[in-house]
Amino acid sequence: MDVKSPEERIIMGIDPGTNIMGYAFIGVRGNRVRLIAMGVIDLRKMADSYLKLGEIFSRVQGLIKSFLPDEVAIEAPFFGKNVQSMLKLGRAQGVAIAAAISRDVPICEYAPLKIKMAITGNGGASKEQVADMLRRMLNIDAGEMPHFMDATDALGAAYCHFLQLGKPVVKTGYSSWKDYVAKNPDKIK
Amino acid sequence: MDVKSPEERIIMGIDPGTNIMGYAFIGVRGNRVRLIAMGVIDLRKMADSYLKLGEIFSRVQGLIKSFLPDEVAIEAPFFGKNVQSMLKLGRAQGVAIAAAISRDVPICEYAPLKIKMAITGNGGASKEQVADMLRRMLNIDAGEMPHFMDATDALGAAYCHFLQLGKPVVKTGYSSWKDYVAKNPDKIK
Repeated sequence: MDVKSPEERIIMGIDPGTNIMGYAFIGVRGNRVRLIAMGVIDLRKMADSYLKLGEIFSRVQGLIKSFLPDEVAIEAPFFGKNVQSMLKLGRAQGVAIAAAISRDVPICEYAPLKIKMAITGNGGASKEQVADMLRRMLNIDAGEMPHFMDATDALGAAYCHFLQLGKPVVKTGYSSWKDYVAKNPDKIK
Repeated sequence: MDVKSPEERIIMGIDPGTNIMGYAFIGVRGNRVRLIAMGVIDLRKMADSYLKLGEIFSRVQGLIKSFLPDEVAIEAPFFGKNVQSMLKLGRAQGVAIAAAISRDVPICEYAPLKIKMAITGNGGASKEQVADMLRRMLNIDAGEMPHFMDATDALGAAYCHFLQLGKPVVKTGYSSWKDYVAKNPDKIK
């Protein structure tokens, strides 16, 4: 594992699904970005929904402990097929979010359209187009690209967050969850 | 706070909502049940959804640390109004579930109809009827009944779980999350 230098900011991306959960870590120093790691948590072998949620919690918490991200960016679709699948997806997201909260890491979320637009300039881009653009921008060898698109989706969320960092409107740059709460007194009525 | 005796089994009930989350604790010794505590976590003053989720995580974890439940029973509706509200509800549930998982407490969930049926014998009973039945069965003074029905809904989930304990079909009686995983090898394909 690459060692994080003091000036480097680590962004974790998560694509939270109920069967495959993608994750990625990038390191940001000024305008320079490098890929640190990406992969998936395969939940398909877990038949029981609580075992799945337990696995998500411990794996995401383990990744956060290992790579020490400064922020987490989540790809969050807001509309789905039906209420049943949205409840399941919401639970999986909630457990992943709780793993970040439990380690005091602030979270930002981005809609898929926003991620595609930020990376390719086209909100209707395919997953393959997004993956290909990320591969070029991060100088990843074609052979090193992951089998599951969930991993590149997570990388897309992390990269989209990096692109937002320079913009003045972004509500981020918090050192911790407590910091986020302290700097947003207006969010507590 | 009442002290838990070694033979007493503590059941925590949760009614996980996005604005008000109800909770209740009952102590079970054989066929005898007593109310230990009930109340609500009021999330209405939190305008930001991440602050809400953070609050749910820390409050539920705090309650678990204080009352040391052996099991958690959740009231879990499976169908809702629309996909947007179900995603929000799923996230709130996921965070509450993660708080239990992080403290190694196994979880059971019950549909509202099942809880109403178990307590009143009528799946179409009103919240008031369920609350009144619980008040009688647990000898709670009318003046001690909570203002929010979310608290009695949580109590209903806990009581429903107690009623399941004697039944042979119930998949519970785990001492911990690890125990649950170990005793359910068939759930990992």
